[in-house]
Amino acid sequence: MTSIDTRAARAADDLTAGGWALPAGAVGTHRFTPKFEAVIAGLQARLTALGGTEGPVWHPPVLSRSLIDRAEYAESFPHLLGSVNAMDEDADGVVLAPAACYPVYPGLADGTVGEQVHFDVAGYCYRHEATSELGRFRTFRMREFVTVGAEEPVTAWRNGWIERGEKLFAELGVAVEVKSATDPFFGPGGRLMRASQLEQDLKYEFVAKVSPEDPGTAIASANCHKDHLGTRFAVRLPGGDTAHSACAAFGLERIALALINAHGDDLNDWPALAAALPTPGSPA
Amino acid sequence: MTSIDTRAARAADDLTAGGWALPAGAVGTHRFTPKFEAVIAGLQARLTALGGTEGPVWHPPVLSRSLIDRAEYAESFPHLLGSVNAMDEDADGVVLAPAACYPVYPGLADGTVGEQVHFDVAGYCYRHEATSELGRFRTFRMREFVTVGAEEPVTAWRNGWIERGEKLFAELGVAVEVKSATDPFFGPGGRLMRASQLEQDLKYEFVAKVSPEDPGTAIASANCHKDHLGTRFAVRLPGGDTAHSACAAFGLERIALALINAHGDDLNDWPALAAALPTPGSPA
Repeated sequence: MTSIDTRAARAADDLTAGGWALPAGAVGTHRFTPKFEAVIAGLQARLTALGGTEGPVWHPPVLSRSLIDRAEYAESFPHLLGSVNAMDEDADGVVLAPAACYPVYPGLADGTVGEQVHFDVAGYCYRHEATSELGRFRTFRMREFVTVGAEEPVTAWRNGWIERGEKLFAELGVAVEVKSATDPFFGPGGRLMRASQLEQDLKYEFVAKVSPEDPGTAIASANCHKDHLGTRFAVRLPGGDTAHSACAAFGLERIALALINAHGDDLNDWPALAAALPTPGSPA
Repeated sequence: MTSIDTRAARAADDLTAGGWALPAGAVGTHRFTPKFEAVIAGLQARLTALGGTEGPVWHPPVLSRSLIDRAEYAESFPHLLGSVNAMDEDADGVVLAPAACYPVYPGLADGTVGEQVHFDVAGYCYRHEATSELGRFRTFRMREFVTVGAEEPVTAWRNGWIERGEKLFAELGVAVEVKSATDPFFGPGGRLMRASQLEQDLKYEFVAKVSPEDPGTAIASANCHKDHLGTRFAVRLPGGDTAHSACAAFGLERIALALINAHGDDLNDWPALAAALPTPGSPA
């Protein structure tokens, strides 16, 4: 094994020793204990309070191929997309959801939105990651707040979520660095596109340690999509302009790992979050 | 549309009108509201109490292909198995979990169990169903209690779960028929095998209406696997015999639909379950 594999194996063993997870046999997958699931449920409740919603709409782990094609996901991340094949393949096959938000857009497609609409969603996501360090999940749960509307309120909303995220992680006792980052939302544009994205401050990541030797992993992000998805799904504003969109996305398992790394294996040592933790036995 | 498609569309519309779900765009998928998720979480808590456990281990929605091959799933249900393909396909690809229990067996494989061991697991499952009537989910959550051990206590445990299931559904106010059924656990054996399974009483289904015009849908089952999985995973008893296994499986979304069909769209009219329902916002 390479040293990254050795570290990954040791970090996974530590997770098992702490009573959080069991091996699941496939790269980037885990079996989570009721103790771990209680943390996930606590995080969901915390995020519901932070978002001021009634809770997320829970999205399915599979999407129609036509939806993901319209979003042009595969043009940016062809290597991460998991397609589902069955023996009696039909015309509109399904893919594994790469993010929680996609089913929001068909409901708005080819229509007009007011100044701003809001969504709170969650679901299982799949990314066919090539490496196996702890936190590089192939399958994971994402909680995502989404807004669609005019550029100015959408950008202000995204900036508000950077502040909310900082407040959340401070309350949870998880040290994060907020970093401007790149993400090829706009197709495989290479260095020039990434530089442009950095200049425009479109993506901020909350980076934390998910294991002792982790140099830093993005556990959440707050992103402006500009009018990329508005264009793809033909969503217009009342004046006729194309709608902008933005999201605040929380990787639930990664946040749980950051909490475990920060506070240890005994939930009684987790004062800040403990109050929000529901009874074990109701997985989120 | 055929009349079954029309009925399916009307039943899905009713679900949306009742505040339970939103369309998701792919056959056999739904987006579930916090109101629906509260029912799922309540069911999980009820099943935890019924099983006398600390709650389920939450299994990933994808499994290694080698695991599902060893279980010989594809030899019985080739048309239902969803394989995940990515552009940089690796040797040990993944498949979508067709049932929640599979990751239990590698932990016991090529080893010896005592008289009886117990598991409580849950997870997302995928079945590439050909039809789209309400309740014929391609993606759904299954809660599954599993036991592995000697034939006699395993069979007695399974029979105990038939009684527990009857008690549960009576408490929930869901009218069920308990039916002896067939399920080709033993490969594509056709009529003779199915007749044999009926004679041996290996599978019981809890059948209920999930929509007004539904002739009856299996919402749970209690099953003896004989030594099929014990053989496939080389699990032995202390005396050297191959271990038997059994499961009690609960289709969470189908049970929720049966509850909605029985009690209507207002959760305040659900006296029996209401006490177990947690706050909306913690999806299960």
